[in-house]
Amino acid sequence: MMPEGQGAPASPQAFRSSPDRGSSGPAACPPPQLPAPGSPESPAPRRGAIRASFPQKLAEALSSQYGLNVFVAGLLFLLAWAVHASGVGKSDLLCFLTALMLLQLLWMLWYVGRSSARRRLKDTHAGARWLRGSITLFAVITIILGCLKIGYFVGFSECLSATEGVFPVTHAVHTLLQVYFLWGHAKDIIQSFKTLERFGVIHSVFTNLLLWANSVLNESKHQLNEHKERLITLGFGNITIVLDDHTPPCNCTPPTLCSAISHGIYYLYPFNIEYQILASTMLYVLWKNIGRKVDSHQHQKMQFRSHGVTLGSVLGLAALAATIGVVVVYLIWIGRSKPRSESALLMFYLYAIILLILMGAAGLAGIRIHRLDEQSLDESKNPARKLDADLLVGTASGSWLISWGSILAILCAESRPPYTWYNLPYSILVVVEKYIQNLFIIESIHREPEKLSKDIRTLQVVTVCNGNATSLPSSCFESRPAAGDVAPQGSEMPHAANGNMCLGEVGSKEEQKSWEGALGPACHPRFLQGNAQRRVLRNIAAFLFLCNISLWIPPAFGCRPEYDNGLEEIVFGFEPWIIVVNLAMPFSIFYRMHAAASLFEVYCKI
Amino acid sequence: MMPEGQGAPASPQAFRSSPDRGSSGPAACPPPQLPAPGSPESPAPRRGAIRASFPQKLAEALSSQYGLNVFVAGLLFLLAWAVHASGVGKSDLLCFLTALMLLQLLWMLWYVGRSSARRRLKDTHAGARWLRGSITLFAVITIILGCLKIGYFVGFSECLSATEGVFPVTHAVHTLLQVYFLWGHAKDIIQSFKTLERFGVIHSVFTNLLLWANSVLNESKHQLNEHKERLITLGFGNITIVLDDHTPPCNCTPPTLCSAISHGIYYLYPFNIEYQILASTMLYVLWKNIGRKVDSHQHQKMQFRSHGVTLGSVLGLAALAATIGVVVVYLIWIGRSKPRSESALLMFYLYAIILLILMGAAGLAGIRIHRLDEQSLDESKNPARKLDADLLVGTASGSWLISWGSILAILCAESRPPYTWYNLPYSILVVVEKYIQNLFIIESIHREPEKLSKDIRTLQVVTVCNGNATSLPSSCFESRPAAGDVAPQGSEMPHAANGNMCLGEVGSKEEQKSWEGALGPACHPRFLQGNAQRRVLRNIAAFLFLCNISLWIPPAFGCRPEYDNGLEEIVFGFEPWIIVVNLAMPFSIFYRMHAAASLFEVYCKI
Repeated sequence: MMPEGQGAPASPQAFRSSPDRGSSGPAACPPPQLPAPGSPESPAPRRGAIRASFPQKLAEALSSQYGLNVFVAGLLFLLAWAVHASGVGKSDLLCFLTALMLLQLLWMLWYVGRSSARRRLKDTHAGARWLRGSITLFAVITIILGCLKIGYFVGFSECLSATEGVFPVTHAVHTLLQVYFLWGHAKDIIQSFKTLERFGVIHSVFTNLLLWANSVLNESKHQLNEHKERLITLGFGNITIVLDDHTPPCNCTPPTLCSAISHGIYYLYPFNIEYQILASTMLYVLWKNIGRKVDSHQHQKMQFRSHGVTLGSVLGLAALAATIGVVVVYLIWIGRSKPRSESALLMFYLYAIILLILMGAAGLAGIRIHRLDEQSLDESKNPARKLDADLLVGTASGSWLISWGSILAILCAESRPPYTWYNLPYSILVVVEKYIQNLFIIESIHREPEKLSKDIRTLQVVTVCNGNATSLPSSCFESRPAAGDVAPQGSEMPHAANGNMCLGEVGSKEEQKSWEGALGPACHPRFLQGNAQRRVLRNIAAFLFLCNISLWIPPAFGCRPEYDNGLEEIVFGFEPWIIVVNLAMPFSIFYRMHAAASLFEVYCKI
Repeated sequence: MMPEGQGAPASPQAFRSSPDRGSSGPAACPPPQLPAPGSPESPAPRRGAIRASFPQKLAEALSSQYGLNVFVAGLLFLLAWAVHASGVGKSDLLCFLTALMLLQLLWMLWYVGRSSARRRLKDTHAGARWLRGSITLFAVITIILGCLKIGYFVGFSECLSATEGVFPVTHAVHTLLQVYFLWGHAKDIIQSFKTLERFGVIHSVFTNLLLWANSVLNESKHQLNEHKERLITLGFGNITIVLDDHTPPCNCTPPTLCSAISHGIYYLYPFNIEYQILASTMLYVLWKNIGRKVDSHQHQKMQFRSHGVTLGSVLGLAALAATIGVVVVYLIWIGRSKPRSESALLMFYLYAIILLILMGAAGLAGIRIHRLDEQSLDESKNPARKLDADLLVGTASGSWLISWGSILAILCAESRPPYTWYNLPYSILVVVEKYIQNLFIIESIHREPEKLSKDIRTLQVVTVCNGNATSLPSSCFESRPAAGDVAPQGSEMPHAANGNMCLGEVGSKEEQKSWEGALGPACHPRFLQGNAQRRVLRNIAAFLFLCNISLWIPPAFGCRPEYDNGLEEIVFGFEPWIIVVNLAMPFSIFYRMHAAASLFEVYCKI
């Protein structure tokens, strides 16, 4: 949980200079630049460079520290409630969360009202349309969850405190307004260093994180209770089992309805959890973007095309169907009797091993194809992408923690039931598959959009391969958008024109040779296979996307062999292992949804 | 513990272009740049831009994921040992750590041997001399600790496994070679993307982190045992107390010597802990620097000057003396009897409250002085500095977790012994003081070295204030090193010359006006107070430095009121609170040492 609060948003200079570099080449000698008086950033940039009355670094540190303190205080409230601390009730916790949400509501209203007057710069990488779409979906389910909770409160209103009714109402309003806010403002690049904006955004980030932690805790308690009930049937009755039940001490008026609501709530929690974490990542990107200097147009629109991915989709959908089947059977069998439980575990391990092998192979193939393709990576600054990569590796660590725990337990256990031998390859494969998949995704999201670079390369190839080996001084090729640059959207043709203009210039013999060497592979027949490669990559992305959705389902809906196989609990002890799983599992679950989101982006980009 | 592994090392282009910007101005029209054939980076940079056979992002992800897996596996070994997992003994853990150290030893030998042949680029910000000095000091104590452990092994050799002897020997050798390695190579900027180098560095980072975690765990167990022994005297005997003692089950040959060694080991652990974490941060900076493009000279040498800081040093030394007195009295009084323990707590809280108020005031004064001073911040890329800022905020969160726990406990407790009322302001002050101090340090380390910018501003002021109001087009001022740039060391005069060359150029009336406005404050008498300001800042830094050293001592040597006051344990329960403290305390302790190191740097920079 280390804060990335201080993540240096790089030197503004680096960004200010990039449009220059984009159009250098023969035109590399611009007249001494005077600040354009009309541009929005020009008023006093020189003055700002000399007198920074409230420097960005300080504003960042101020707000990130405030946010961390809110978060830490909230975590302790959650801990206090989780361990039944004396004097800290559920209503205190809900009061605290409600207050945070109300504060955020006020701030969002202020921001929306204030923004309607002025136009802001936009980060086209942030808040992609599909991201906003999926957050809306999750938000709708969250609001349904809120309604169920209100129903639950009405049913048990005799013995529940008012806060348990106020909280879901506030939460529903908060969800509605937040989704509206994210639709309108997730791409904003706030240019004023006004304290109130920074504090508001970071407050929103950590409020959502706390709501996430709250949901995770509720879900974990529920899962743990179910697990404890099941555990006895597997023959591990010697573990002290105390159910941590929060059923209110009074009767609900229509009992069947109440029990239906209780069940419904727990099936909707996983979506609420995804909603909260997704909202906080989008808000975090908004926070990181505050004060950034970027060109207003720097991004190619991504398109979703569905043709040519039959194989990947069919395989992926088959995996999805298999998963749903396995989960249903697992949930029916587990905890009925010892042999039934063992069969359920065996079935789950076999299914997961096959799926993980396929996914690993697909990921390896994807990496191999990327390695064959000569293309430099786009390493320009991009908070949304950096966060994606960080989250992939960070949240995978949660699942690695559980897997290494299983591996260690299997190696050290004194007696091993037969199904544990399937646990060993399963745990190893979980580690390996995430390792491979992260590599594939990280490389893919750092690729330049295919179309742009292909166009330019084609031009180069035509120029060089025609036998017309006019030397190409390197300064000409500066006109090609370099790896670190993001080319303005409509600038492909001017670049090409620049390239041609350079052909007359003089260069040394050596350079020419190195150029031909570098471009040589592009003349190779392999270059013609570009479309086939792209189709294979798109199939891989589609397959992995559906597989990640599949693997999100089992842990989110209570199919958790890490609990049920019982071996780790014997080796580590019940309490320590439960703490490890409860801390790591939320990250592991989030990993799958996040990887799926990233793979969707990869798919659209190819 | 989120990995910063993916921290995008920004676009290489941004860095490559900075020398241009530094010397633009009238000379802003360089001839189309041909790659200089002699420079170390030139061989095939053009080719690299087109064909990146093994892209940096991928290499980073590969190695960081490997490191995280090693770390996670190691953490589970530690956990298994800590909870007395069945089948995992201390010798398994030590075997694992020894193997990691041996692997790192081999890698370091390979690297040192390979590096002797070639010269590498250096990052002058990384591995400062004082940093290497302090790591050497801590390493010496670590080696003494190793010798004591060998002595302990010899004494108990009858009943200890061989690994407990092999481990300290390996550790001593590892420490020796690592310090040699860090002296020679901490500043290296590895330019090849060779896998072996990345893997080696990240392996070293996480090996040191695991050794740190191992020491922390040993220290925590020891503190916890002492705490449990004391707890009874404060009247909290109702908590289940089981000592977690690891004394070997045989007799040591000279008993007095053995007990002396045991005690000695625990007094040396805090230094060993600092050594390990310091080494891993230096190695982490080395890892982040791999593949970075920087100018070879970009840093002013910092000088340590001791004159003019009498007040700060005297106050700081007084605080240090008071701390040592308080800690000694605390350790004698605590756990003797209930009134004695309460007096000890009362004394500690009063002392800490006074010290924290003074530190907070000093920090606020420092921030205020920075706000008065018109100077833009240096926001150029600098992994060492970014890590410093991240660590300050990240490790402060550990201490905030404990403080918010105390605050919550005080607010929610049902009965409160009188001394707890001192705990409330103490806890609040811990939060506030770290908040302020972080702001002060983060702003200070982002300031440009004073001398350089003062020189240039003086030139500007002379130019404008002379009444010789020749207009200064903004392009001239590009020659001043902008906020994002780090000027080459010896280039002050060329810049000045550029500035003068510009004086003949034509600019608009408006610009001239805005320039005079911007430079106006510099003509103000306040500008003359620069030296006084600097002296005040240096006093503040010296005072805070000594205070942070002071506040490192109590928790490192067993003076932990969070354990001893007992209130939090009643509210949260013994186990949960002990887990919170044991997880957060190492970061809280490290915070103090790290803040002291940063303040030392700030002091030298002012």
